[in-house]
Amino acid sequence: MKTAVGIDIGGTITKIGLVSEEGVCIKKTSFRTKEETTFSSYINKLVGSINTITNDEKILGIGIGAPNASKSGTIETPANLKWRGKLNLVKDLRKKLNYNIHLSNDANCAAVGEMQYGNAKNLNDFIVITLGTGLGSGIVSNGMLVEGSDGFAAELGHFSINNKSRYTGLGVKGGLEAYVSATGIKRTIMYMLSKYMYESVFRSISFNDLHGEEITKAANDGDKIAIKAYEYTGKILGESLANFVTFSQPEAIILTGGLAHSGKWILNPTKKAFEKKLLPFYKNKVKILLSGLEDKDSAILGSAALVWKNT
Amino acid sequence: MKTAVGIDIGGTITKIGLVSEEGVCIKKTSFRTKEETTFSSYINKLVGSINTITNDEKILGIGIGAPNASKSGTIETPANLKWRGKLNLVKDLRKKLNYNIHLSNDANCAAVGEMQYGNAKNLNDFIVITLGTGLGSGIVSNGMLVEGSDGFAAELGHFSINNKSRYTGLGVKGGLEAYVSATGIKRTIMYMLSKYMYESVFRSISFNDLHGEEITKAANDGDKIAIKAYEYTGKILGESLANFVTFSQPEAIILTGGLAHSGKWILNPTKKAFEKKLLPFYKNKVKILLSGLEDKDSAILGSAALVWKNT
Repeated sequence: MKTAVGIDIGGTITKIGLVSEEGVCIKKTSFRTKEETTFSSYINKLVGSINTITNDEKILGIGIGAPNASKSGTIETPANLKWRGKLNLVKDLRKKLNYNIHLSNDANCAAVGEMQYGNAKNLNDFIVITLGTGLGSGIVSNGMLVEGSDGFAAELGHFSINNKSRYTGLGVKGGLEAYVSATGIKRTIMYMLSKYMYESVFRSISFNDLHGEEITKAANDGDKIAIKAYEYTGKILGESLANFVTFSQPEAIILTGGLAHSGKWILNPTKKAFEKKLLPFYKNKVKILLSGLEDKDSAILGSAALVWKNT
Repeated sequence: MKTAVGIDIGGTITKIGLVSEEGVCIKKTSFRTKEETTFSSYINKLVGSINTITNDEKILGIGIGAPNASKSGTIETPANLKWRGKLNLVKDLRKKLNYNIHLSNDANCAAVGEMQYGNAKNLNDFIVITLGTGLGSGIVSNGMLVEGSDGFAAELGHFSINNKSRYTGLGVKGGLEAYVSATGIKRTIMYMLSKYMYESVFRSISFNDLHGEEITKAANDGDKIAIKAYEYTGKILGESLANFVTFSQPEAIILTGGLAHSGKWILNPTKKAFEKKLLPFYKNKVKILLSGLEDKDSAILGSAALVWKNT
């Protein structure tokens, strides 16, 4: 059986898994990213974990998803990691491991994962939107990732949207992820609490204590603040996606990540605003779907898919 | 010498030229598109012109640029042509001509032309913006045109921009081409005449009598309405281009067409707004350039380039 290693480097946890060509995660391990104080000790820890997982078995290669990954194998001043400057991740790993190593940003890995195992099989033109702490995106055109001149394309979380004034962490006014992400909908809950006087479970929960699943549960229970928040978020997402279609005319746009787990609550208002805003010659040509990889191993699978994609 | 035929189908004029691999237009002809009442008589006229131009010499193929061109060789309900429905341009021509025939929309041809002969040689990731009656665009990623699932990607003229309320011909509110195009700047001249009471040559010229070259001349003469109109247009274009960079991170954005002929008047305010709005990790990585093909044959050259690109 052919296998590859998939690695997901997150701000909190680094996950490492051995993945089959069919997308089954056979073995996995993880460790806390922040435990390692220097980047070189982090590399040693990562190499140790890879060796444990592979156990001297032959693998096809290693795929890594990380924030702020460049085309040249580096990670550049990532906001969520504590090491600064340009980190030579691929070069440092190659000194210690004799494998093909592929690096891309985490949302690009999600897109490649959907192509390999998920809802984008056989699609040449699609967009994946990851709705986590921020909003990430992976764009595929002509069957290839749109990576841009050095790998920083598809940063649609920083896309500045219509008539909106919230700031993102990077200081972008009206940046899409300030509205459409797990954090964005929390901000919208606060906004709805300011705007309306409806009774709501959220009147007794602080911003910091608020979690996405509770918003879904509240909406299911008929909480008007929760329902209004999903409608507001979906409208902005749907209108933005209709705008993105003028750029790359995808066959499908796939939503994944925390906020997408709310299912119909985010999907229905998004589709409604999307169809309304879409130009006539795109109507009924672009599907909005939820991810085909909705499980806890999706980040590992997406990273491993980089290996299959490049083999 | 290897040659190809390039054809530019415009609403008013159809141009046909014989082009060398180096981008020299050796022979050319043209006729009025609207003269032919049916699409089948138009095809006959086109075939006659192609045969005259080639004069039985062997050519590598035919490239055609047309509005609303699809990937499958059809033109779909183009606003500027009088024939309705889905026109089987490539199929109808193949019945009468034994050549490879490639069709793409006119702005895509401009992009391929810049890659073959102009300012995008050796670039794998760039965007061409054509500023004519409307705003067209050609996007190249990984060295390939971003055409989308059936050829209608890169319609950035219909991109809906921030806080703006003008309508495009297609009814898009805040559509970019309502502001940034030869027509858009004429609308802005009217807006500036409404907003300010400055003396201006434009107080005695009607909308219909107003032409782009006069706006450039007036700006050169210090006309405040003209200068304000360029500043307003460039600011919107620059901010929009900065937004587009989050999509495909091009190495360069190339401006071409009527409005680009104003040179510094459009370029300076565009660059200023662009650099101001660009995210930190894109700074100094994306050039804004004028076309390398600024002559009267550029549309023919761009269409012919489709042949070299596909050979």
